Amino acid sequence: MKSSIITLTTDFGTRDGFVGAMKGRILSLFPSATIVDITHDIQPFSVIEAAFTLLNFFSYYPENTIHVVVVDPGVGSNRRELIVKIAGRYIICPDNGLLSLLVQDFDLEQTYVIRRNWQEWVIAPTFHGRDIFAPAAAMLARGESIDSIADLSDQQPVLYSWPVKLVGKNQIILTILHIDRFGNIITNLTRKQWDQLNHGKQPKLKLKKGFIYGIHRTFSEVQNGQLLMFWDSSGYLAIGRNQGNAAALTGLHLLDEVVLEY
Amino acid sequence: MKSSIITLTTDFGTRDGFVGAMKGRILSLFPSATIVDITHDIQPFSVIEAAFTLLNFFSYYPENTIHVVVVDPGVGSNRRELIVKIAGRYIICPDNGLLSLLVQDFDLEQTYVIRRNWQEWVIAPTFHGRDIFAPAAAMLARGESIDSIADLSDQQPVLYSWPVKLVGKNQIILTILHIDRFGNIITNLTRKQWDQLNHGKQPKLKLKKGFIYGIHRTFSEVQNGQLLMFWDSSGYLAIGRNQGNAAALTGLHLLDEVVLEY
Amino acid sequence: MKSSIITLTTDFGTRDGFVGAMKGRILSLFPSATIVDITHDIQPFSVIEAAFTLLNFFSYYPENTIHVVVVDPGVGSNRRELIVKIAGRYIICPDNGLLSLLVQDFDLEQTYVIRRNWQEWVIAPTFHGRDIFAPAAAMLARGESIDSIADLSDQQPVLYSWPVKLVGKNQIILTILHIDRFGNIITNLTRKQWDQLNHGKQPKLKLKKGFIYGIHRTFSEVQNGQLLMFWDSSGYLAIGRNQGNAAALTGLHLLDEVVLEY
Repeated sequence: MKSSIITLTTDFGTRDGFVGAMKGRILSLFPSATIVDITHDIQPFSVIEAAFTLLNFFSYYPENTIHVVVVDPGVGSNRRELIVKIAGRYIICPDNGLLSLLVQDFDLEQTYVIRRNWQEWVIAPTFHGRDIFAPAAAMLARGESIDSIADLSDQQPVLYSWPVKLVGKNQIILTILHIDRFGNIITNLTRKQWDQLNHGKQPKLKLKKGFIYGIHRTFSEVQNGQLLMFWDSSGYLAIGRNQGNAAALTGLHLLDEVVLEY
Repeated sequence: MKSSIITLTTDFGTRDGFVGAMKGRILSLFPSATIVDITHDIQPFSVIEAAFTLLNFFSYYPENTIHVVVVDPGVGSNRRELIVKIAGRYIICPDNGLLSLLVQDFDLEQTYVIRRNWQEWVIAPTFHGRDIFAPAAAMLARGESIDSIADLSDQQPVLYSWPVKLVGKNQIILTILHIDRFGNIITNLTRKQWDQLNHGKQPKLKLKKGFIYGIHRTFSEVQNGQLLMFWDSSGYLAIGRNQGNAAALTGLHLLDEVVLEY
Repeated sequence: MKSSIITLTTDFGTRDGFVGAMKGRILSLFPSATIVDITHDIQPFSVIEAAFTLLNFFSYYPENTIHVVVVDPGVGSNRRELIVKIAGRYIICPDNGLLSLLVQDFDLEQTYVIRRNWQEWVIAPTFHGRDIFAPAAAMLARGESIDSIADLSDQQPVLYSWPVKLVGKNQIILTILHIDRFGNIITNLTRKQWDQLNHGKQPKLKLKKGFIYGIHRTFSEVQNGQLLMFWDSSGYLAIGRNQGNAAALTGLHLLDEVVLEY
């Protein structure tokens, strides 16, 4: 069960030493941990953004990797603190919907709730990242059994869903799940869903002004500055712009809806 | 004395390769160093912000950890270059007040001044992070004695103070030491000072508009969007806002003063 | 040929899990890699910014270090994917001009083109960082021969040049290659070129308003807030401002031209 790789995904930013404290706690418990920064720039409190980001990197890590994810608007409330085994990896996170997208693609194997009896320090009510989640990761990484720090639970993690909406015969409404650093707009339509819905027709996406026609393989298939649809690297339908920013051009935002016709 | 952990805290940002050069210098001298990024996003030249950030992570690292802190508006002037031992850890930094808050909480054990005779490269007058501080850390981490690169000094590091001001019987003036990524506003009042001043009364903090009453344990004890006072995870009185940004709402800035009544 | 150090320089930002996926791919192939983040904040698609940033850190790493650089506006087009040996280190990058400045200072030893026959996964047309460049680095780092993943090429990498322009007898036109996090403005004039042109005279740089006179050694030689010229830590002529932001004050931008008289 042992892996020395611990990844960190938070909304703590990189300005304040919060992440530094988490890493210190890990290295104090397990000096030879391999700590990997995924991102600390999740929009503050945005569970959906973190849920989507997980899809981008989760499965590229070896089995038994420990992924710590702390986006925790309810810190200090009675939401649970979890260790979840999914597809052979561990995720340590608050129980607030962070796993919603991941469990659509990967098997949820086991759910544990972290106990409060093994921490040899005061647990600050506003900083469970440092006092609960990071040290739990260090304990697993250094070879402690899960049972020594957490209890198996029958209760599923909190899961939200953002389904594609069918309207009329050849029309669906998509929701924007994420806008990435380049201004690419990622919708909630997966390639698998699209293959089930569609029979070889090229779709068109309706914008405030005009349409985007067809799904392209890569950016350089369209002119500089032109919008296109493509399958993003996690398998979701995305709107991009060759050498430009699609979000800035279209004015679309997180959780907006768009209509796809086919 | 040996530890292979070297942490880096700078105002160099993450855009330019400056930090990359520091890490390269460390790995050239000591390839098995464990380099930990704390932050490179200290506001440029802000010694007070770096001094506060140190409090957030310093003591969570194992003894003998080497913390490199480079916020250095006086680079190239005659300010000293220090290796300081505090509470069993090492801090390597310019002598410009960076240790001001740390020494209020932890024992300053020894102060050394880095020598200029062991560097086998040209020392650029504008980049001591790469040419002096980072390599000094690598030398210690790989087991060289402190005496081989620095001289013990009798002269204390430069220390500033930002004390709480007492006005009248039940009123104190606090200074804003830091505003974090979430917009939480951290004042200079420590819990210890408060326990000495106060005898069980709940305080109220005066804002431009209205007051904040009492000190809460955690964010979820107040309504969404509401302001609260709480003890931040380093033990300083802070102003936060449940699922919101207190700094944006109150208009308070770094080094502003606020009045606390009790 | 073996080194376990792999550095990463990209324009992927730190918000999306893209870099996390690259690191996962590396650690899956070679769990004991030492992965070093240089920067992920290159301006999106800015080959020139990445080319300049390389100068800042490249040579501070030990020989055989593997530098991965992914700023790749042409991803999915037919631009080549390279492994280049320069001054004893390896650079793995798309063939789009990223090496333009580096080869002016260091010897280009060998150029290889990465093959497409050894990757045991689907190569996403929009994410060669994860599917081609990062795993190529992991393969080299874990000791595979270059020949097992790439072919030696006779064709030089794509190289651009941004030369200093001579006008009249004692006047040259410089181009802005980079503006750093502090607002320092780096031009394309190297110290070596200047020593060839000039015979001991102090130059003056013409701005929209007034001049900057002489080249200083370090910031603290001028008053707070004052502009100065200095040799940046990579040996290029730069415009800075003591404890201030030169770019904000002068209004100069990337690729603007300025006149130096002497």
